[in-house]
Amino acid sequence: MRAVRTLGLLGTGVIGAGWAARALHFGIDVVAADVKPEMEAWLRDAIANAEPALARLTLAPLPPKGVLSFTTSPAEMAARADFIQENVPEQLELKQKVLAEISRHAAPDVIIASSTSGLTPTDLQRDLRAPGRFCVAHPFNPVYLLPLVELVGGQQTAPQTIAAAQEFFRYIGMHPLHVRHEVPGHLTDRLQEALWREILHMINDGVATTGELDESIVYGPGLRWAGMGTNLIYHLAGGESGMRHMLAQFGPCLKWPWTRLEAPELTATLIDRMVEGTQAQAAGRSIRELERLRDDYLVAIQQVLRQFDVGAGSTLRALEQRLYVDAGRGVGGQPAVDAQPLRTLSTHVRPEWIDYNGHMTDSRYVQAFGDAMDALYRSVGIDEGYRARSRMFYTVESHVVHKAEAHCNEPIEVTTQILSLDEKRLHVFHRLLRTSDSALLATAEQMHLHVDTAQSKAAPIDGEVRSRLERLAGSHASLPKPVDAGRHVGPRVQ
Amino acid sequence: MRAVRTLGLLGTGVIGAGWAARALHFGIDVVAADVKPEMEAWLRDAIANAEPALARLTLAPLPPKGVLSFTTSPAEMAARADFIQENVPEQLELKQKVLAEISRHAAPDVIIASSTSGLTPTDLQRDLRAPGRFCVAHPFNPVYLLPLVELVGGQQTAPQTIAAAQEFFRYIGMHPLHVRHEVPGHLTDRLQEALWREILHMINDGVATTGELDESIVYGPGLRWAGMGTNLIYHLAGGESGMRHMLAQFGPCLKWPWTRLEAPELTATLIDRMVEGTQAQAAGRSIRELERLRDDYLVAIQQVLRQFDVGAGSTLRALEQRLYVDAGRGVGGQPAVDAQPLRTLSTHVRPEWIDYNGHMTDSRYVQAFGDAMDALYRSVGIDEGYRARSRMFYTVESHVVHKAEAHCNEPIEVTTQILSLDEKRLHVFHRLLRTSDSALLATAEQMHLHVDTAQSKAAPIDGEVRSRLERLAGSHASLPKPVDAGRHVGPRVQ
Repeated sequence: MRAVRTLGLLGTGVIGAGWAARALHFGIDVVAADVKPEMEAWLRDAIANAEPALARLTLAPLPPKGVLSFTTSPAEMAARADFIQENVPEQLELKQKVLAEISRHAAPDVIIASSTSGLTPTDLQRDLRAPGRFCVAHPFNPVYLLPLVELVGGQQTAPQTIAAAQEFFRYIGMHPLHVRHEVPGHLTDRLQEALWREILHMINDGVATTGELDESIVYGPGLRWAGMGTNLIYHLAGGESGMRHMLAQFGPCLKWPWTRLEAPELTATLIDRMVEGTQAQAAGRSIRELERLRDDYLVAIQQVLRQFDVGAGSTLRALEQRLYVDAGRGVGGQPAVDAQPLRTLSTHVRPEWIDYNGHMTDSRYVQAFGDAMDALYRSVGIDEGYRARSRMFYTVESHVVHKAEAHCNEPIEVTTQILSLDEKRLHVFHRLLRTSDSALLATAEQMHLHVDTAQSKAAPIDGEVRSRLERLAGSHASLPKPVDAGRHVGPRVQ
Repeated sequence: MRAVRTLGLLGTGVIGAGWAARALHFGIDVVAADVKPEMEAWLRDAIANAEPALARLTLAPLPPKGVLSFTTSPAEMAARADFIQENVPEQLELKQKVLAEISRHAAPDVIIASSTSGLTPTDLQRDLRAPGRFCVAHPFNPVYLLPLVELVGGQQTAPQTIAAAQEFFRYIGMHPLHVRHEVPGHLTDRLQEALWREILHMINDGVATTGELDESIVYGPGLRWAGMGTNLIYHLAGGESGMRHMLAQFGPCLKWPWTRLEAPELTATLIDRMVEGTQAQAAGRSIRELERLRDDYLVAIQQVLRQFDVGAGSTLRALEQRLYVDAGRGVGGQPAVDAQPLRTLSTHVRPEWIDYNGHMTDSRYVQAFGDAMDALYRSVGIDEGYRARSRMFYTVESHVVHKAEAHCNEPIEVTTQILSLDEKRLHVFHRLLRTSDSALLATAEQMHLHVDTAQSKAAPIDGEVRSRLERLAGSHASLPKPVDAGRHVGPRVQ
């Protein structure tokens, strides 16, 4: 098969535009054909809309972007393309007709693929010239972000067509899944469609709203499905004996009316296939190991969702708000004033904070110091109300000295000492310690400037907050100046 | 209803242990009852296994952990608890019997809830003393991490029981979903079960393996479901006209054999319910706005999964490896040597990098500088092979000066200048610029020490890498020393 420099697209709706955005982003030229000329503007707009998210997918260096051209002539597109992807509406006769037509204008070594959600390749390739180069390549919306593409060959499809298509889709960042048997809906849409039809029944029966049914997935199983499928998840639910135990425990439920879809008989053969399949997926990893992996990604995903205030991330936000309020109540809104640095943070090194060197990456030290500052701020009354009045501290300068490595899951803590305070500036010194033996892992000296955030300029600290900070600063005045305070970066005599 | 200080558990398998871990973590005492005394050790082990992930869920301050006690007497548990959660096997008669029994030992204002996956509350509460305080509270595995809990009342359940249960579950960080109608399997399991039974049919028919079917979800729809459910997702798939267009386009597919589950008739009433429901979910947000939200979380989740090398994260890793190899080929493995700072990073400020002040948070500046160093390292030949020989640079000291704010989605870049180099130390100066107008947003002066990572001690830089770095340092020697180099943090005369 030929190298793919130009992707030809037939049909430029949501799916066609998604293909275009992805291919262009990874350096492939695109020639898009649509019989409606007004689709060109729509297509360019859709690609522009996809770009900001795509641009953030990876920091890795990208080749120059591909070039987009548009034509109302499918024949012209077919003559110019190295790989053709068809995305016209889901109607068998229509697809058969346009696929046959473009096959007469495309060189015989040009792969022609269909984005069909569920029509089968044997039906679609029937009238093609050189039908061996045809396959189904079914993507998922948004095509420019989701990696899955189902590849299905028909009775006439050549094996090398699937292999070459896999190579091309991997090149543009996708995960090609070879569907080895033709069935209506392929694999993914059969599973999605079962869930979707059950939803429609529930709405039709008046049992729940669309919103409630979405919640029923988003706050629970949906979080798991981002990293593991139902089979592996149920293997874990079975405890130490995995899928076999799970089927023994929940097998009887398959006879119950938990969905309108009747289950197959749970024969010994079926049980064996489920057990062998999930054991292959586990690939020697114990239930405990897989649980740890599942737990790690579930925690990290919820923290990501919190940033966007969506789904389980909203729940986490609400929880944290309550915890902060309760914690404030516990200390009577007054930080303890002692002649010793404040303990401002106590946490664990999270697996996603580890870099390729096997220990905590630089930016996470600064994140820990930032969380420590947030705790200090809250303890002196800087909260959402304070920020709502356009008052806040900004970091203006920060000097971090690394002393030793922090490792995965280690408990760590931060103490904070106030070095000086004036009407606008807060000068602090943090120590990051390993909790188990109080080993010093890093220090940070920072200058924070109090600002009027509406005007983006320095402004005096408000009265009540100022006096609380002064009490703290006063109690810290007797502490010795840290050895690492006042340092600059530069070569020193050893 | 009474304040919940002690949670009583009946049954201590995977679900019971999950409840215990969650409650203890958020400061609730737990008294766990299981007729098998050997379950105590199992339970304590399961709780210990849950704790590392739970401890990483939030940095917010937590109350002191709850205290766990174990008893083989359900009656004793019931007498001591403020809220009881039953988790015995999914058998109606068994559950009815134990629920009735504990209801006779629990004060009448103690809520009794069942973790049943799909039995209905009217059946379960039949023999209870004070049946009004009973409801179903169905959680999801792992209970200590997933926020969803379905609350279902039976015919005898008092409305205040649901309200009080909601309050308790929110307190321990959960999202209570009130299921307003009793149906077998409640809401979530009906949807999960439809998908699960379709899986079993596919395995039974020999169409695919468990692993292929898991891939069919994990790399595609599963990523979406972490943040939005099928209804909202399909609303987006309909383009500007949303759910109504989607149903018009894919309605006919409901008659096709894409699953063994037959769909309901797509009547005008059903269409209206779907459209009104999803419009309520959109809550005034346009399709474009919702697309942006979806895209933002899809990008961020894939980056999280990359850390764990799972699902779509593995695809992203493979893509990046290929891109780095291609980029290296492009420059012939030789960094450009000019008398000007290297352009080491070009990216965008990602939405998840923004903090409550509305601009890029401190730690992300350091992350950008870290990514810039990685690019510099790769350009001089420090790659996986180099690291595999236990050689690497560690950051020992870093001084960041903030100049201006970086805002969401702004394109930014980093340039890097070598200030000095000796056999073990690399002294650099980064500038973070806003790409549109080259405004200086921050600088970082850093000292990096070359180490033997196996021995965790300083070691000379290897020959080839050293000579490449020397060429660069030589070309940078003529550059003026940056104004901010050599600074220390501290109050200055204004």
